[in-house]
Amino acid sequence: MANAASGALGPLSILNGTMSEWQARAEKNPIVDFVDYCLRGVGQVCFMNNPVTGAFILAAMFVAPIRGDRIWLGVAGVIGVAVSTLTAHALGLDRGAIRAGLFGFNGVLVGAGLALFLGPNWDGLVFVWIIAVSALSTVLMAALATIFLTAWKVPPFTLAFNIATLLFLVTALHAANGRFAGVLQPNAPAITAEEVSTDFRTISGDSTIVDGITATFNGIGQLFFAEDVIAGILIVIGLMVCSRIAGSFALLGSILGMLTGLALGADGGAIYHGLWGFNSFDAALAIGGVFYVLTWRSGLLAAACAIFTALLFGAISSIFEPWGLPALTLPFCFGTLAFVLLKGAARNFVPVEVQDITTPEEHLQRMRGERRGVGRDAVGALRED
Amino acid sequence: MANAASGALGPLSILNGTMSEWQARAEKNPIVDFVDYCLRGVGQVCFMNNPVTGAFILAAMFVAPIRGDRIWLGVAGVIGVAVSTLTAHALGLDRGAIRAGLFGFNGVLVGAGLALFLGPNWDGLVFVWIIAVSALSTVLMAALATIFLTAWKVPPFTLAFNIATLLFLVTALHAANGRFAGVLQPNAPAITAEEVSTDFRTISGDSTIVDGITATFNGIGQLFFAEDVIAGILIVIGLMVCSRIAGSFALLGSILGMLTGLALGADGGAIYHGLWGFNSFDAALAIGGVFYVLTWRSGLLAAACAIFTALLFGAISSIFEPWGLPALTLPFCFGTLAFVLLKGAARNFVPVEVQDITTPEEHLQRMRGERRGVGRDAVGALRED
Amino acid sequence: MANAASGALGPLSILNGTMSEWQARAEKNPIVDFVDYCLRGVGQVCFMNNPVTGAFILAAMFVAPIRGDRIWLGVAGVIGVAVSTLTAHALGLDRGAIRAGLFGFNGVLVGAGLALFLGPNWDGLVFVWIIAVSALSTVLMAALATIFLTAWKVPPFTLAFNIATLLFLVTALHAANGRFAGVLQPNAPAITAEEVSTDFRTISGDSTIVDGITATFNGIGQLFFAEDVIAGILIVIGLMVCSRIAGSFALLGSILGMLTGLALGADGGAIYHGLWGFNSFDAALAIGGVFYVLTWRSGLLAAACAIFTALLFGAISSIFEPWGLPALTLPFCFGTLAFVLLKGAARNFVPVEVQDITTPEEHLQRMRGERRGVGRDAVGALRED
Repeated sequence: MANAASGALGPLSILNGTMSEWQARAEKNPIVDFVDYCLRGVGQVCFMNNPVTGAFILAAMFVAPIRGDRIWLGVAGVIGVAVSTLTAHALGLDRGAIRAGLFGFNGVLVGAGLALFLGPNWDGLVFVWIIAVSALSTVLMAALATIFLTAWKVPPFTLAFNIATLLFLVTALHAANGRFAGVLQPNAPAITAEEVSTDFRTISGDSTIVDGITATFNGIGQLFFAEDVIAGILIVIGLMVCSRIAGSFALLGSILGMLTGLALGADGGAIYHGLWGFNSFDAALAIGGVFYVLTWRSGLLAAACAIFTALLFGAISSIFEPWGLPALTLPFCFGTLAFVLLKGAARNFVPVEVQDITTPEEHLQRMRGERRGVGRDAVGALRED
Repeated sequence: MANAASGALGPLSILNGTMSEWQARAEKNPIVDFVDYCLRGVGQVCFMNNPVTGAFILAAMFVAPIRGDRIWLGVAGVIGVAVSTLTAHALGLDRGAIRAGLFGFNGVLVGAGLALFLGPNWDGLVFVWIIAVSALSTVLMAALATIFLTAWKVPPFTLAFNIATLLFLVTALHAANGRFAGVLQPNAPAITAEEVSTDFRTISGDSTIVDGITATFNGIGQLFFAEDVIAGILIVIGLMVCSRIAGSFALLGSILGMLTGLALGADGGAIYHGLWGFNSFDAALAIGGVFYVLTWRSGLLAAACAIFTALLFGAISSIFEPWGLPALTLPFCFGTLAFVLLKGAARNFVPVEVQDITTPEEHLQRMRGERRGVGRDAVGALRED
Repeated sequence: MANAASGALGPLSILNGTMSEWQARAEKNPIVDFVDYCLRGVGQVCFMNNPVTGAFILAAMFVAPIRGDRIWLGVAGVIGVAVSTLTAHALGLDRGAIRAGLFGFNGVLVGAGLALFLGPNWDGLVFVWIIAVSALSTVLMAALATIFLTAWKVPPFTLAFNIATLLFLVTALHAANGRFAGVLQPNAPAITAEEVSTDFRTISGDSTIVDGITATFNGIGQLFFAEDVIAGILIVIGLMVCSRIAGSFALLGSILGMLTGLALGADGGAIYHGLWGFNSFDAALAIGGVFYVLTWRSGLLAAACAIFTALLFGAISSIFEPWGLPALTLPFCFGTLAFVLLKGAARNFVPVEVQDITTPEEHLQRMRGERRGVGRDAVGALRED
């Protein structure tokens, strides 16, 4: 498959895009192949079917500490992605989808999420729960894919991770062996609008610009429960390896999520920690190039989606308050879903069908090739495979 | 398009039905056209594709006071319908649907709802939120229409209004700039069945009949957040302009909602204010002539739907109690949806397909024409377009 | 229809399977016919289209006491199944589906559920609510069947019962005439994991084995709100009459549900009362032979589904805590749905399409016949009807 950006990247060009040549070689050794598609699974959380992107994200997870331990988050993520991928094999799910990492991305998030919310770190029972819930995430992914793709031709995003993790956490409230780490706290909703401290800089005391940059990268890392500026930077680099467009929209989305929190007058501490950013960054990336070919119009649509997703973060956090549950990536799922569902109705945008998704750069290229060719149509019609 | 009822209405016959001749003329002037389909959007909350119905409803909104101000509700509704309709143009949504008011009806409700629940009246930030949430309602409407029409051939009713408004309100609980007006109050659910004052006349002290009539018209007005007997009467007149059947079922539905509240032993004050009526009236109207051709059987079905919708009002109000959220028109959406979904299975009724909906009177006429013709079938098969 | 197991059952063979010969005879007398398909409706809660199974289950309901009365539960169930079935006739729903009991199984559960949660026993208004909510369950069943079968080719299980009953119960919290019996109690969620008494034998003081057996049969009976070991035994016998495979998976599922509760460290009293078993038993039965042909792989899948369904029971119970609502059979619905939705994607299993479902034994037989014939395919392709 020819890649227009290859030239500009020089010797790094093999890392670019979906690395299909590399995958053809990896396939020959089952262990290398398994590692390859597990890493792709990590990358697929951000729609990047690229093992190097996955490796950068994993590195970010190994950098960020959970209760002072810098290894725990990464190890839990690795277990999650491996177990969920193996479960897909055990069920006899589609091999092509497994090798694209589509049954790994929920698992890595399950592992990471339970690593944070259950405790203590390295506890035997926590390992058991991570394995069980990761396996469950694959069952749910296959079931939800049937529901979403059959009826509406949209993917279920990370819904399986959200459902599996939330079901376990809400049960653990009352389960003696649930290993609830006490990070979450149930709370009766009340109107606190008057008392909210919106000061963005309550925590660090730094300048607004430094704090804004910190919040932006925290907002990137938080998608993988990695609250750490270095982690955020590593993830952006990993995205850029596969797609410069995706990396740029990730930054834009995290910034817009942060700004939406500030505009609404949300708690400044939560914004600083990146909680308003991580859903919006993934949503912006999805709309700005992945599910729609990048045009100035779809760029604006991506911005609108990032803002809506941030509102959804505020809403779902409030809705989950009585049980103390985290919003996880439900805001991203619902926000992106709403905007992707416009694809059949909103004629000012050029949608990319699910089975035709590769990278934003390739989508652009295909659209341009097509416009020189037989006229405007859904991009997938001219797939080059 | 011939209209059987035209003769009886004399010179007013041009106002009757969907006024398609008028619309053909309005189209020539873009501003008149825009006003026409915004007004149709207001009418479409009650399935009336008729600008005069919309004008009567808007008049009702200008009559009812919010915190003592009689203009605020109407202005907010106008902004809502205009913004949501313009957003549909910006996205490139179907022009025919826009001109039928289908991307305006959620917006007018968003504007009206936020005018009540946010405050103070005429606040700059409240205008910003009304504009943003109205625009969002159009995105959600297009997304939900894809979900509902693709898979089940039913419309998403006012779900987009409900979702957009509730997401904003629940976020505003904790948002310093949310402009929460304090109308809503979070509350831990408890069994209050024993303490409920079911006295229907606690508030006015009038006779049961006067209070019943007041509650019935309050129940009409409340659909547009207009708690006012005059507003209710204006809305019924507006409905009657387009369809006498629709106007009659609106009254029947509001009465049945009220009676269901009384039968369950609900709070008498809430019933008096019309809160048990507004969802049931719209549900009865939808089933009794719009989605099913009016027969004695579908008339009974409409009554059953109105009762179920009232139960849903009680249920959703209880479910939303922890956050203090209003049920809005979710009871109408779910109640009507359940009964419309019977269309393929329940053979004792004659359904009208979504794309064939005009007015209850025309549906009746088509069925009669058809019965003289090629035999009983779904009404749409003999569309006269 | 030939039945391979007939020989082994000797003179009882007429009771085996779906008893289609008997049904052909019953049809001649409208009253016998009505009783037949009402009893099938009771059996269909466990996917058994067999009136004798239904009769055993009804007997179990007449055995178990509600507030000291051993008749009330059974009578309420009979009313529920009769009313919901008659409602299906009134709506003009499919006669074949009615005669298979598919519009009765939600009704019997509505009757039983309201008999427990509303009170006092034999109250006039409680009868009214049972009749109204049972009728509603048929409307919802027809609507949900349209949604589920059209889009995904899966049935809506007992969702109609759950929705209708929960809507009424949550409304009854604040309704003076709701006849809330005080069995349920709203409660703000809190982390009680540390305080939970996981002792399985707190109540009886018997040995672990006796208590385990008690919990297993309580877990069978609880599906019909019949907490009683004899009731549980009667139900298993009833299932075995129709299908030995189904009866065995019922026991296995109840045991796995109990063990999941123990593994999570759930409240020991709840486990003893069978609350962790009833959803898992029906889920295991559905996956182990009904929706997938029984193989060692689908047997394992059934076990996994039983465990997931138990987790769902824990989760939904926690989620419903603020309103004090019971989980009812929602865990069964969602757990079974997730695993049935795998049918198109998971190639290691042989699914049975909805319209081809008879009994696990017949599915096995058909698969074997088919494998001798034209090769492996979905079992339904070779239906013997």
